[in-house]
Amino acid sequence: MTYCVAMCLKAGLVFASDTRTNAGVDHIASFRKMHLFHIPHQREIVLLSAGNLGTTQSVVSLLQQRVAANLAPHMHSVDSLYDAAVLVGRTLKEVVARDSEAGGPTQQGVDFGANFLLGGQIKGEGPRLFHIYPAGNFIEATEDTCYFQIGESKYGKPILDRVIRYESTELPEAAKCTLISFDSTIRSNLSVGLPIDMVLLRRNRFEEPMKPHRVGADSAYFQQLHRGWSDGLRQVFESLPDEPWFET
Amino acid sequence: MTYCVAMCLKAGLVFASDTRTNAGVDHIASFRKMHLFHIPHQREIVLLSAGNLGTTQSVVSLLQQRVAANLAPHMHSVDSLYDAAVLVGRTLKEVVARDSEAGGPTQQGVDFGANFLLGGQIKGEGPRLFHIYPAGNFIEATEDTCYFQIGESKYGKPILDRVIRYESTELPEAAKCTLISFDSTIRSNLSVGLPIDMVLLRRNRFEEPMKPHRVGADSAYFQQLHRGWSDGLRQVFESLPDEPWFET
Repeated sequence: MTYCVAMCLKAGLVFASDTRTNAGVDHIASFRKMHLFHIPHQREIVLLSAGNLGTTQSVVSLLQQRVAANLAPHMHSVDSLYDAAVLVGRTLKEVVARDSEAGGPTQQGVDFGANFLLGGQIKGEGPRLFHIYPAGNFIEATEDTCYFQIGESKYGKPILDRVIRYESTELPEAAKCTLISFDSTIRSNLSVGLPIDMVLLRRNRFEEPMKPHRVGADSAYFQQLHRGWSDGLRQVFESLPDEPWFET
Repeated sequence: MTYCVAMCLKAGLVFASDTRTNAGVDHIASFRKMHLFHIPHQREIVLLSAGNLGTTQSVVSLLQQRVAANLAPHMHSVDSLYDAAVLVGRTLKEVVARDSEAGGPTQQGVDFGANFLLGGQIKGEGPRLFHIYPAGNFIEATEDTCYFQIGESKYGKPILDRVIRYESTELPEAAKCTLISFDSTIRSNLSVGLPIDMVLLRRNRFEEPMKPHRVGADSAYFQQLHRGWSDGLRQVFESLPDEPWFET
């Protein structure tokens, strides 16, 4: 499985993905699920993926290959992030159609599906974020619903719902909340694992290229969050009262 | 959907279930998902259900009807909770076989499946807890894995994983943790709703019959937990530091 989160806030964008893939618990491997498309001072685009690894790798390879060959429309040529989402959706459908076409050996119930989160900023428009579904169609984040998750999303959702607000959440706070959301997920689900790849993109900040960070088991900061959150929750829990009828 | 939790601790047993059922968001209703089987000073048994409402209601009706008619083996006649789990599993298979048999109108992809949590104590043995699967087979809780969830289980799992320990968790603490687990689930998922039915069963306590409690939106205690937990989480969150690389 996988866990990826992306948010589009007034302050900018946050992206995070874990690196674990598995086909059964005895076939666990580490793969990057975050891919960047970048033109200095012009565009910063991040793509996160979840689902069939064959499909997601092929989609990314085709997108990259077409940039390299300058086969427009490609990720460096599209005029808007909306057009980039259309491109990713179309490439996804192309790959799934190819891999599931008749003539090969039987598919044996393989699910070729994949989900993508695509976000970033292209000069001339604001930051945008899209969730591209396995069918190739997509939705865009809004002020009301400013974050998306793909993969193993439920364990880490409550803390996001409590903290993240489009208007008021600053990027460092959003990043901290994202890491706590990963900590809860990793704790409750074996199929999501460290390290975490993370990118913060401040709105209209095209001076320097985006810097992805990798947060591993050896990250002092992640360990501090992990312990601090766990101890803090215990303290809050213990500070809350018991109800008289519990004394049975 | 549904959310049910049950735990089997050294101190005793805790059961809780929500009351919301839905077939699409425009067809929401309230049904009790907790059913009790009780012989004064002899046995206290609780059954929680999730899944197809036609199936779960039929299973409960047949179990009750066979107690009333004294058609052994029934829930008041079985010698152990293990035998009660076998009985529930067999009744589940009977109902699914009946409802899905050929000859009626087409099933149109209906899922007749259901999950049950069955726990309690029969005099002569200790408290026990079982999870009965849609196939009718089942597993029993142990000291290592002392709680089960059915239905919409993921949102509320992290807090259980952090707090619940077989040896050391007392019943009031377990009940408080269970209600917080429901609060997180209700916050993140529309298909789970108040009121919550709850029963605590202290080990070897056969003097009085078990007393189910209903925790509704008007419960001052639940409101206190809801606010206290939310405020406490925010405070812990704010007390945790930001990492320097967040200052991009």
